Amino acid sequence: MADINLRFSAGVIPTDYIVGVASSYDMEFYEVLESRRSIRSFQPREVSEEALERIVNAARMAPSGSNRQPWRFYVVRRRELVERLAEACGGQSWIAQAPVVVVATGRRIGYNRGGYMGDMSFIMDVSIAFTHLVLAARAEGLGTCWIGDFDNGAVKRLLGIGDGEDVVAVTPLGYPAGRGFTREARRKALEEVVVWVE
Amino acid sequence: MADINLRFSAGVIPTDYIVGVASSYDMEFYEVLESRRSIRSFQPREVSEEALERIVNAARMAPSGSNRQPWRFYVVRRRELVERLAEACGGQSWIAQAPVVVVATGRRIGYNRGGYMGDMSFIMDVSIAFTHLVLAARAEGLGTCWIGDFDNGAVKRLLGIGDGEDVVAVTPLGYPAGRGFTREARRKALEEVVVWVE
Repeated sequence: MADINLRFSAGVIPTDYIVGVASSYDMEFYEVLESRRSIRSFQPREVSEEALERIVNAARMAPSGSNRQPWRFYVVRRRELVERLAEACGGQSWIAQAPVVVVATGRRIGYNRGGYMGDMSFIMDVSIAFTHLVLAARAEGLGTCWIGDFDNGAVKRLLGIGDGEDVVAVTPLGYPAGRGFTREARRKALEEVVVWVE
Repeated sequence: MADINLRFSAGVIPTDYIVGVASSYDMEFYEVLESRRSIRSFQPREVSEEALERIVNAARMAPSGSNRQPWRFYVVRRRELVERLAEACGGQSWIAQAPVVVVATGRRIGYNRGGYMGDMSFIMDVSIAFTHLVLAARAEGLGTCWIGDFDNGAVKRLLGIGDGEDVVAVTPLGYPAGRGFTREARRKALEEVVVWVE
């Protein structure tokens, strides 16, 4: 009986339940979008298999040109590899604070989007899926940070990725330390980025 | 009094209220992700200013490398332009069924992501923001369809877009006709796209 009472006492509900599971089915869409922040400081706390699966599944559901799904997601938890990946990301050692690093790769799709993107058209597909992943992480209470400064060749060597794939994005993944998901974000005003064509 | 009763009678609540406004603050995050579909058939019904503003605001909030926000969103409602844009998208005339077309452009950012993306690195930033936009549209009950087959030069000429910007993505935007947001989606199995590196 004591156990049962404890489960329903707010002070002792395991944090996993509050953040890692329950919130994933409760969190309102715009709340996720507006409170996602780039997180650069992490707790060492592990991420559950269930949360990781929901996050990669969110990426899997993304749209892609002709439904090619030219992507793959490497979920890295081995400590030594996480540290080496941080090295391959311009030596940004803070990345290795996170218990998990996710690497998204893509395959060239042989389609020249817009008549000018050529061989780089696949960046778009992988970026869509990775955006799903980053937002789903937020819905799970997990922080991410898109890393653009990485060495494609070095990351591929570390993970044994073959010639057909290239790394498009890397992110650490973990529970935020410090300020976490604030609502403050410096963004241009709407008028600067939107043109209404009547 | 009759009017007041009508407002609360389920059968006659204006659809705008149910789909266009209320759902935007209610819809659960994973529900949005999992029920977003590429919509290729639209009702002629107009989209409210409020919904459009929430959607472009969702794009505005997206992360970008060094917070550059190298994007702009053209919201096109003039009928003649919508029809010409459909023409510039490989003559896909179904696009012009939608009351709105959104064109996202980007500026080159002078940053070589991964050591190989070079001048095309900006595709990633704009794709993140456009993914926000597409998901927010779904949260508003609005359908979209990423268009990859467009003529950058032709779209730019139609909208009077200058040399510094290139078109990254185009989508029709409107309330779905027909099947709408089904949960069916053909996607690869999770095992095919995820590598767990322990």
